[in-house]
Formats: sequence, C-alpha cells, structure tokens
Amino acid sequence: MKIALAQLNNIIGDFDGNLAKITDAVADATSAGAELVVFSELSICGYPPLDLLERKEFIHTCKQYIEKLATLADPATGVLVGGPEFNPNKGGKLLFNSAFFLYEGKVQQVFRKSLLPTYDIFDEYRYFEPNRLFSILEFKNRKLAVTICEDLWDEQPFENEFSRSRLYASNPLEELAAFGPDVIINMAASPYSHRKMEVKQSIFTGKAARYKLPVLYCNQVGAQTELIFEGGSMAINPSGHVAAKLPFFREGILISDLDELIASEPSLSLGKIPGRIESMADALICGIKDYFGKLGFRTATLGLSGGIDSAVTLALAAEALGPENLHVLLLPSQYSSDHSVNDSVQMAQNLGIKYNILPIESLFNEFRETLQVLFKGLPEDIAEENIQARIRATLLMALSNKFGNILLNTSNKSETAVGYGTLYGDMSGGLSVLGDVYKTDVYLLAQYLNQEREVIPVNIINKPPSAELKPDQKDIDSLPPYEVLDQILEAYIEKQLPLAKAEEMGFEPKLVSRIIKLVNMNEYKRYQTPPILRISSKAFGIGRRLPLVARY
Amino acid sequence: MKIALAQLNNIIGDFDGNLAKITDAVADATSAGAELVVFSELSICGYPPLDLLERKEFIHTCKQYIEKLATLADPATGVLVGGPEFNPNKGGKLLFNSAFFLYEGKVQQVFRKSLLPTYDIFDEYRYFEPNRLFSILEFKNRKLAVTICEDLWDEQPFENEFSRSRLYASNPLEELAAFGPDVIINMAASPYSHRKMEVKQSIFTGKAARYKLPVLYCNQVGAQTELIFEGGSMAINPSGHVAAKLPFFREGILISDLDELIASEPSLSLGKIPGRIESMADALICGIKDYFGKLGFRTATLGLSGGIDSAVTLALAAEALGPENLHVLLLPSQYSSDHSVNDSVQMAQNLGIKYNILPIESLFNEFRETLQVLFKGLPEDIAEENIQARIRATLLMALSNKFGNILLNTSNKSETAVGYGTLYGDMSGGLSVLGDVYKTDVYLLAQYLNQEREVIPVNIINKPPSAELKPDQKDIDSLPPYEVLDQILEAYIEKQLPLAKAEEMGFEPKLVSRIIKLVNMNEYKRYQTPPILRISSKAFGIGRRLPLVARY
Repeated sequence: MKIALAQLNNIIGDFDGNLAKITDAVADATSAGAELVVFSELSICGYPPLDLLERKEFIHTCKQYIEKLATLADPATGVLVGGPEFNPNKGGKLLFNSAFFLYEGKVQQVFRKSLLPTYDIFDEYRYFEPNRLFSILEFKNRKLAVTICEDLWDEQPFENEFSRSRLYASNPLEELAAFGPDVIINMAASPYSHRKMEVKQSIFTGKAARYKLPVLYCNQVGAQTELIFEGGSMAINPSGHVAAKLPFFREGILISDLDELIASEPSLSLGKIPGRIESMADALICGIKDYFGKLGFRTATLGLSGGIDSAVTLALAAEALGPENLHVLLLPSQYSSDHSVNDSVQMAQNLGIKYNILPIESLFNEFRETLQVLFKGLPEDIAEENIQARIRATLLMALSNKFGNILLNTSNKSETAVGYGTLYGDMSGGLSVLGDVYKTDVYLLAQYLNQEREVIPVNIINKPPSAELKPDQKDIDSLPPYEVLDQILEAYIEKQLPLAKAEEMGFEPKLVSRIIKLVNMNEYKRYQTPPILRISSKAFGIGRRLPLVARY
Repeated sequence: MKIALAQLNNIIGDFDGNLAKITDAVADATSAGAELVVFSELSICGYPPLDLLERKEFIHTCKQYIEKLATLADPATGVLVGGPEFNPNKGGKLLFNSAFFLYEGKVQQVFRKSLLPTYDIFDEYRYFEPNRLFSILEFKNRKLAVTICEDLWDEQPFENEFSRSRLYASNPLEELAAFGPDVIINMAASPYSHRKMEVKQSIFTGKAARYKLPVLYCNQVGAQTELIFEGGSMAINPSGHVAAKLPFFREGILISDLDELIASEPSLSLGKIPGRIESMADALICGIKDYFGKLGFRTATLGLSGGIDSAVTLALAAEALGPENLHVLLLPSQYSSDHSVNDSVQMAQNLGIKYNILPIESLFNEFRETLQVLFKGLPEDIAEENIQARIRATLLMALSNKFGNILLNTSNKSETAVGYGTLYGDMSGGLSVLGDVYKTDVYLLAQYLNQEREVIPVNIINKPPSAELKPDQKDIDSLPPYEVLDQILEAYIEKQLPLAKAEEMGFEPKLVSRIIKLVNMNEYKRYQTPPILRISSKAFGIGRRLPLVARY
C-alpha cells in the first residue's frame, strides 16, 4: 500500500482555503498512486485554533467541511484528516481532538487523541477530553495504528527541572500495539524549537525501533502567529532509520510504499538535521512571511538604530518580504553617534531598502519644554531616556498607520528578559522577530546572514552594544557581558534550574540573584509586548505564565 | 465542634507574609474556641501561582512553610491549609493541588483536588494531576469531607453555548458521601464575577440541601493582578440556608459550632447578595488597592480627558489609594472642547486631587512637521489621531517614570472590544481599571459613585462620548449607540451565542456581523493591553485566548 503524507501550511479558520489545499493534495497524491493520504492534526481548521474551539458554530463548520472533503476526494482513496469532534458521552469536556478516516465518499471511522499536552504553549485539556477507548484502522488488508501528535510522547525526552519522563498515566501506543498493527501513523502539529530537532526525530525513530514497525509522521508546516511549525514529516523504517523526509519550512507530499519502507535498508544520511543557526534563520523568515501573508499585509517598517538587533531583523524581513516591501526610518537624537546613521544608511543601501532620516532632537526638546512645569530642577534620568524611545515609536507607528506597514519589533530575548527596553517605545510593534533569540545568537545570525555577502556592515557587528539614550551609554554599563548574561538567563528561563545549580555553573551568586530579580520584576513589561516568534523551548508569551503581582 | 473559616488576602509567593497571617488567624481562632481552622485553596503560596508551580524550589518552599506552620500552630488545634504537593506516583503530572491537615505539630493527612478547572482563567491541568482516591477526615469524633473549590462544581451552572452541565467524568462528592460525613468543607479560590454571585451561592446551598449536610465554604479574598476574589465565605445549614457569612472584599474569621449549625433555623436574610453595581465598584476598588499595595506602589496617575471613563477610573482610584496619592494630567489639544478642561478641573477639585494642564498642540505640530517629508500632500487621517493619543501616553509615562506613579489605563470594555483606542496611546498603563466594564455599566458606576455627593460632574455624565481627536468627533459617528453595542458584545463575548441567536435578539444581521468582525480583527491590539481587572465571566486577557492570525 502506498501512503502519502501531506505537509501543508493552513490558515486557522480559513475553511475554504484549507479544504482547497487538502483536496488538491488528495488529487495529487492519488495521481501519484497513493491509496491513503494523511494530513496533520486539526488540519481542517488549522492548529492551534485556541478558544475558537469554544464556539459551537466553529465545530459544526469543521464537521461540514470534513463531510464536504469526503464527497470531493477520490472515493477510492482513503483520507485521514484532523478536526475537532463533539464528545458524544454525557460527562467530560465538550470535544475530542480527532482523526477522521474518509473513504468512498463518507466518514468511515474516527480516532481520538489520548495524550493531551497541557504545558508550555499547549492548552489541549482546556478543550478536549482524552480518549480512553482504542481501535485500529483496517484498510486494504493492513492494520494501521492512528495516533495524534502527543500520543507518541508518553515518555518526555526534554530535560528540565520540572518535566517528568512520564507525564501521563496512560500509554496509547501500548494499547494499539495489542492490535498487531503494520504501521504507526502520527498526525502532528509539532512546533519548532532550535535545540530539539534531534530529540524530536529520536522520538519517532525510537518508537519504530521499539515496536519494530514503520512510523509515518505527518507534521504541519508554517507559522501561526508566534508558533512556527517546521514540517520535516518522515517515513521511518522498522529498524528506526529515516527512510524518507519532507523539507523543513516548506509544503510537500511524501509517498511511501509500505512494503518498500518495511524492507528498506538502514540509512544514516537522511536523519541529518540542519545546523541550529541555519534552521533558526529559516524559522524566523517563515514566521515573518506567514504573519504578513496570512493577515493579508505585505509591507513592514522598523527603526534602524545602527545596532545589531535592528540590522538582523531587517535582513530577515528582507528575505521574508522582499526589500521592496520594506521602508525603514533612521531616528537619530543628539546622543546618536555618527556611525549609527552611517552604518544604517549602508545597511539599507546594501539591501536596496527605502529609508528616511528623521532627527528627533527638536521633538525631544519640545517634550522637555512641555514637561518643564513638572520636571524643573530635577536631574535627567530614565524618564528622559524613555521619552526618546517613545518619540521613535510614535513616528514609526505614524508611518505604519498612514501606509499600512506593520512595525516589526527588534528587541532580543536578553534585553526582553531583564527589562532593558522602553514599553511603548522600542518594545512596540506588531510582531517581535528576535524576542526569543538571545543576544549571543543574534550575533551568530548576523554572521550566518553575511555568509554570501556583507549584508550587515561589519561595523554593526563589531561595535559595543549601546541604547544611545544618554551620552556615551553602553549596555555593559548596566548589564554583565552577554556571554555571561545569556547563560544565566537560559539556565533560569529554559532549563528552570534552581539558583544553586546556576551557581554550580560558576557564576557569582550575587550576579545570578540580581539577574533573576530583574527577570521577575519585568514580568509587567513583557505582558504588553507583541507576540514573539518562538524558536526556543521556552519563549516569553503564551507558553510562560507568571503572576505580575507576587513576591518571588 | 467549633470550626473557623479564615478568609485571608495573601500575596503569591510571599511565604513569610502568608505564614504570619495564617499563624495569627490560627491563634485568634483558637482563642475564640475553634478546634479546627480552615484556610483557602493553595493558601500557603497564594492563588493562582501559575508557572511558579513549575519551579521545584517553589514546591519545596511550600512544603517547608507548611511544616513550619504545623510547629507554630497550637498543637491542640486542627488546621486545614492548602498547598501544592509532589505527586508520589510514577505517572502523571508532577503535582497535586492538596489540603494538608495539621494537628499536634505535624502533617497528619492530605486531601487532593479531583476536579481541575481548565477553562477561562483556570489552567489547573497544566500543573496538577486529578485525585482519584478518596478519604475522609476523622477528627474529634466527626467525619469531615474535605473538598477543594471545583470539587463541588461537578455540575456547571453557568449558561453559555460552550459549557456543559457535566464537565467532568467523576463526582468527588458522591464518593465522599459514601463515607457518611457530618459536614462538607470546601477550601476555595473562587474569583468574583458580577453576574454570578447568586449562582455561586446556590452551588453551595444546593449541595447542602441535596446531601442534607452543613457546608463550610472558605474563599480567599483580595486581588491577584487581574483576578479579584470576593471572599464571602459561608456556613450553610443542612436545609441549604446561609447561617453565617463573612463580608465581601475584606478579611475575616467566621467560627461556627457544628451542632448549632446543624440545628439552625432556615433564614433567608443572610443569603442576600449586594447589588450588581455596588459589588462591581467594591471589586474594582479592591483590585486597584491590591495591585498597588502588593507591588509596593502607592501613587497613580492618569489622563483626565473630560470623558466618563477617566472620571470613573479616577473616582475609583481615589477610593482605593486616597486622593492624596493621585496626580492627574489634563492634556488638551486643539480639538478638545473647553468643557473637557473645565469639567476635568472640576472633577479633580471635587476630590482634592493634584492636577496639571499640559496642552499638546505644539508637540502635535512638531510631529507633523517632522513627518512632512513622508506625509506631504496626504490628507490627515487615523495616523494623526493616533499621534495625539501617543503624545499623551508619552507625557503620562514621563510623569510615571520620573515620580514612580503607576499609570492607570482608562479604556472601557466596549471600546477595547471593537478596537476603538490607540495602541501605545490611550491603551497604555500598568493596570486597566474598566477594561472589563461595558460603557453602559460605566454610566451606572458613575451614578453609584455620585450617590452621596457629586464627585463626577454631571456634565461629564451627560455629554455625548467623544475621543476628541479631530474636529467635532463623536463616538456615535463610528459606532452604534452603546446600549445596542453592549448587548451585541455581551452576546458574543460572554454568552458566546452563535450569530443567528444575536439576530434573534432583534439586531440587524449586518450590524452584528460588522461588530463581530471588529472584535475579531482587533485581537492584536488586546494582546498588548495592560492586565484588566476582571469582573465578568469573560474578560479580555488570560481567560480568553484567540489566534491573532486567523480568518473567522
């Protein structure tokens, strides 16, 4: 039997668009000889639909479109499509997260998700009841074990202080193995994380090897606001080797002959994972592209400061949207150095991007004039620094409002973590591109983006980081070097290590305490930041929920 | 047996502070003859601790403080205190949400929460494993059924399209009833909602009547960022009547003699619920007070526009913080009417609040001047309107940054819903006071606050609402009358009615579609708004999660 995995980039709630893509994929796969076409989790509506699942209309629409798909698809081809399903039982949550098997023009069978991730960015128990009754799909004399994403993650491989190796009391694959299946199918919506690509692959190869069964893993691709799905759907042979794989960050269809897959020789080369910075750049470009494309926007703006964050953001945006769709502003104040303007001009010219220089000195003076009645006799401090950042945001948002360019936020994860930024100033924007990228990785991204030619002027990469909000200001005046800061932050935020362990890593206890305090007390600022493209295992935003008012 | 309910206002993560309050309450209740003192859910650490529960250090600290409490409390007094507990089983989530029974200096027994709310603002399945094994507390020849909050909510009484009457497959009270208990104890952290006070009370009176058992309900009180807990702990007799009750929005200890409670006569008067607007005002005042008090801030600022939203916000803040801790700015532009300034001055004087008038016309002109190079020849539009709002935010934040006054946001729920506001402008602030109050209720709040004397000038209440961002602008130019708008919004947001039902309510289908579209397309603005004091069953913020990029 030939089985196709269709790795698509759908839009949440865009039923007509998603249906068209799905029917096209069924037709293409059928032409290529596929007898069964597998789609990703909740593919009919897009993942994650969040609280749209609370609207009964939405669930009814999903049902209608699945039925429509059954009538549109070739009746001789089997289809496995994901969608929400009303829970027919009396007690429990209203919905199941289900896979619908379509054949001969109608829904023949339904399979329900058992393990519902409810951690980090996942909230599935908010909507769904876990499945407790297992069945197998018998199709063309084969037995197929149909699982949905987390169903294969009964053992959690990710190391942190909180996660347990067995997060669930049940194990769906054990239940399904009792039916003696010929293949394990996994319909997934598994987001990208730059340090987890190997581990993720090992989940699937490990299950194949353990059950001596081929695994067909179908992931969705593309970004849904902050979440980026890398695709990378795979066919794995019973010895646990990747036999075929779809690309990352692109749509595609992979057709595997089951007999050939079972008989395939172990191969190591296909299991190779791209480099961490390379995939991070691809993920961020995909994130920008889909944010704009799916919202129906085409053009972006940002403030080019002469620093590395805005430069890297601009280079990524140019890849995602095309330089002709960008319009940047250079907004120097009396504290800006000459090289800030010169380097920014050079950067814009390197990419052929439209730019304007709007000095903010007279606006800054006018604000100080207006505030004289309140501030007279008081020394300048953070208040005046923030005014400059807010003048810039107001000018950038004026451009955005007048011409419909979305403002890209350029803050990195290190400064977002410690609150080194101005709310309603440089923390503004429709989308944060680098908010999950530590400063040390921003430098690596810059080097990667400069591989072929010097897109980002080397002077931008080499100069010491500065906010330039007062004379001769440098980041290093208020923060430890980023090499140190980023390690402490990652230990605290991603790895959730206790204080003691951070100290074991060789950092000064006082410094660690100070950094942790900064992270905690700036929760209120992050509450109001734009959505952040998520590339790590713990990004600021929906996957990290902390009280704003607390003592800890 | 005399049982005390201790209704306390704790701070999340403030272990020393919470422990001191709890030991004081045990001592006071013991002096007054109590043999058992009951505290609210997760009382040792405060509710909701959110992702602090993911830090093992945090759980260990909870355990230490519960053990410390056991040694500090009178050994002859029983104590029921709430806290997280490591799950000793191999599979499942790391924690249980537990009640610890302390007696004679140590932890004697533990009871675990079975029903874990994971909807709206609740995320308990994110952290906790549900209890499946039931036991009873036998103490001084009595059998006590110990339940935690949602454990009594096996039947969901709230009407909306999504909720089911039976959200859970299990029913802990049925299990506990099999032990033949003498009383049902419920340790809760149940937040305020202005339309649900009767329904909430009926849950407890209903359980008492159904099982013919007294119910002792202990709720926490006070605000935790956006969530406001009203207290209102109760002793209910076996006929289902409230026999004694603690006040709303204040700490207190209620001691009930179990025999007397069982023998008590039905009384209706104690079950009386305060008026909707009265309790809403109390809730908002409590919300402001605790936000500032728990963060260690004392002073606030806001922009007084001459409209009703900023006036009501100011009157509530004056109650919460004292007029001497407020400093407001009047920020008129060339489009502001004279009465806006005069009414605002009158309002500030009525309350004895410090104010300054800073006209923004020259700043606005300077911005237009700076943007000439980009905007030359283009008509003025929303871009220029937003510039004015952002100038005001920049001035208010300058005051906030210079003097440490938190900026209060004054947007109401109606405008927040349809996106009638400027991001980084009037949508700024540390805390949104009215973001969950529809405009029609803002008027009712104004009348209520004016009951004793005219705090809010009647002219502010009577004038037609206007943003005053262009000549002769009125809200009614872009929006339907608020009486209509608010009904449609409540049907869509709180009741989650399908479109068809909104039309049944008599509203024009086109209007309903337009409003729903506005709500959906402004999700991106609400993503960046400050935390909103929650007074309804569905507030914007943590309890309402929708995709920013979607078609629906």
